[in-house]
Amino acid sequence: MYNIAAAQSGGPTSAINASLAGIFKKASQSPEIGKIYGSINGIEGMINGNLVPLDSILTSEHDIELLKKTPSTVLGSCRYKLAEYDPNDSRTEAEYMRIINTFEEYEIKAFFYIGGNDSMDTVMKLDRYCKAVGKDIKIIGVPKTIDNDLPETDHTPGFGSAAKYVATTLQEIIRDSRVYSIQSITIVEIMGRNAGWLTASSCVLRANGEPAPHLIYLPEAFPQGFDMERFLGDVERMMKRYRAVIIAVSEGIVPTDRQYVKTGADAFGHTDNSGVAKYLEHRCSERFGCKVRSIELNVMQRCSSHIASLTDIEESERIGSAAVDCALAGNSGRMMGYRRISNEPYRIEIVSFDVAQAANKEKYLPAEWITDDKCDVTPDALNYFLPLIQGEVTTEYRNGIPVHFRLNQ
Amino acid sequence: MYNIAAAQSGGPTSAINASLAGIFKKASQSPEIGKIYGSINGIEGMINGNLVPLDSILTSEHDIELLKKTPSTVLGSCRYKLAEYDPNDSRTEAEYMRIINTFEEYEIKAFFYIGGNDSMDTVMKLDRYCKAVGKDIKIIGVPKTIDNDLPETDHTPGFGSAAKYVATTLQEIIRDSRVYSIQSITIVEIMGRNAGWLTASSCVLRANGEPAPHLIYLPEAFPQGFDMERFLGDVERMMKRYRAVIIAVSEGIVPTDRQYVKTGADAFGHTDNSGVAKYLEHRCSERFGCKVRSIELNVMQRCSSHIASLTDIEESERIGSAAVDCALAGNSGRMMGYRRISNEPYRIEIVSFDVAQAANKEKYLPAEWITDDKCDVTPDALNYFLPLIQGEVTTEYRNGIPVHFRLNQ
Repeated sequence: MYNIAAAQSGGPTSAINASLAGIFKKASQSPEIGKIYGSINGIEGMINGNLVPLDSILTSEHDIELLKKTPSTVLGSCRYKLAEYDPNDSRTEAEYMRIINTFEEYEIKAFFYIGGNDSMDTVMKLDRYCKAVGKDIKIIGVPKTIDNDLPETDHTPGFGSAAKYVATTLQEIIRDSRVYSIQSITIVEIMGRNAGWLTASSCVLRANGEPAPHLIYLPEAFPQGFDMERFLGDVERMMKRYRAVIIAVSEGIVPTDRQYVKTGADAFGHTDNSGVAKYLEHRCSERFGCKVRSIELNVMQRCSSHIASLTDIEESERIGSAAVDCALAGNSGRMMGYRRISNEPYRIEIVSFDVAQAANKEKYLPAEWITDDKCDVTPDALNYFLPLIQGEVTTEYRNGIPVHFRLNQ
Repeated sequence: MYNIAAAQSGGPTSAINASLAGIFKKASQSPEIGKIYGSINGIEGMINGNLVPLDSILTSEHDIELLKKTPSTVLGSCRYKLAEYDPNDSRTEAEYMRIINTFEEYEIKAFFYIGGNDSMDTVMKLDRYCKAVGKDIKIIGVPKTIDNDLPETDHTPGFGSAAKYVATTLQEIIRDSRVYSIQSITIVEIMGRNAGWLTASSCVLRANGEPAPHLIYLPEAFPQGFDMERFLGDVERMMKRYRAVIIAVSEGIVPTDRQYVKTGADAFGHTDNSGVAKYLEHRCSERFGCKVRSIELNVMQRCSSHIASLTDIEESERIGSAAVDCALAGNSGRMMGYRRISNEPYRIEIVSFDVAQAANKEKYLPAEWITDDKCDVTPDALNYFLPLIQGEVTTEYRNGIPVHFRLNQ
């Protein structure tokens, strides 16, 4: 019998805690596993020996259910990058040795790291170090990111919930935008610096006959930069068809004419750090003179667990559970992933692969899913996204406000 | 037997359609009432004779239930201000006569206008005109606004749902903001130009033991302007107590040192129209050098019907129903309102009063509910707000996306 530890890393999502719940439940049921530790603030907790005994914190089925519906990372997070281990440079080894000390002190033989591209780099390096120095510790990566940009896996835990938030909120914004009899343009900025998956997912509204968003702009469509005249032409074309034009734009869109100069606005010389939607708002306002509004969905798209996708939360729990199985089967240096078996009915299976295939890599929307006019996606994209937002979670409310699981409760 | 018409005006909320549903249901059950019309785009529909027969559009109980959960205004809206009627100036009468023509053409004897302060001006003027020219048409105002700034009524339909959205979203943002081990400041901008009700309502989180938001800034607290040094002092004080400081700020806060100068950012000379939270973000970032984020809740706070307050939706329906009773009892020139009977248990009754008491007036948060240090509210405020966000609506989903009632369905 040996102990295990889990940690969470990178940007928050609504499903990271569901994966932790999956690891915890499976490990609790596994006779091979003794204590289950949580490392505070990702790998930093392993370096500093800052662990909490999850067994004595998650003490009931209700605690676990609450944890699954709590957004963000109950164990905290980090953006810490391990140095590449170099056997000829003792300085690079010090940090790894501190981690190994923590493993040994707590008799931990398996470590689960829930995170995105950067976190998979940590999994890869830590696994390589353990193998190099002959330590039999299983290091397993559990993916998560609302960006959906991890290679190999069909989609990532957390993405479906973010997409469901975007779809729900967009549908409501569309209602809001249509009230007046005047021409208007609404530009909604959605997360995704290099990969436009989440922005593209806004096409799901069409499954219910909603034509909006009328224009969808993804970073993948503009490797040569985003041409403003072409954009304004697209908008003008849509204004002829729709009184209230709705535009979904990825935060990663970079207009070629945008000058990131300092603004005198606040007399402190801060550079203009507003998003691309605000910039496009200014340009549309100047060109068309009609009502233009920009909306940033901001962190709400990654933490609105009250509107999480049940499919996503259930899959995220399953992938955590499968990660424990993967370690118990003797594997290490693996990242868990989803493989889609069929779309109708929607079925997936959980697989694992060499974490080096995902670490530090980004997966982009297939080029063939972007329409030739670069301002929309194809029905193939809709078919891919739609199953991921199905089902609603049952949120627990106290005093009319969602209840979350907290470590210090 | 006579016909009636209803219209919706002003900014959208999640509860305006519930009031329309209340009017429709009550009128359908009233033997005195024949046809029920909807005027498209508020009073503009009455001026232009643009009416739809609601009886043939809302054809089932399911339609009505869906309407109650549909945000914004199903009949469209307007920002149209009627001219003051002057019997000595024939030009001012032309518009009123067009409205009267519509009333007579459709045999309408009662008109219900769902709206905010400006809409109550329309109710008042139209009622006065009808009385002046001897037309027996009942004109009744049904309040709505997320700003909660209408006089006489305890609170306004639509406010509770906006407050529930703010509370839910803030609780999730708080989770999101606490993940890293570093100091951070999160500034959330909430609607309310002159009245800080909605921002103040963020205090409800304390009912569940949540200390955040740690600072709450309302326009009412700063009649002399918002002093930046004092604000930065407040933030610094909170940074000593909390690693992740959360600040709720009303969009109507005007920093005294803010210079609304033109920005060179987009090379088009647009003035800086970003919100106060973005400005405060810059100032905190410059002073403290830590991670600072600003979030605008934008239109989501007025249209997120999937997280509407059940109390609000039910009361909004009841107030619409009561408006029909009020007209049937022979009243005109009245605005409906809520009177709070008790807090525990929470009970209200629906009343009406002379619309002139509300038209064009704003109600502000009581000065005694603002703490002496001007950066928080008292427990009295919490007791006032808490009942208004209780209960959750059951949203209907199709393909994982909320279904809304649409006129053209």
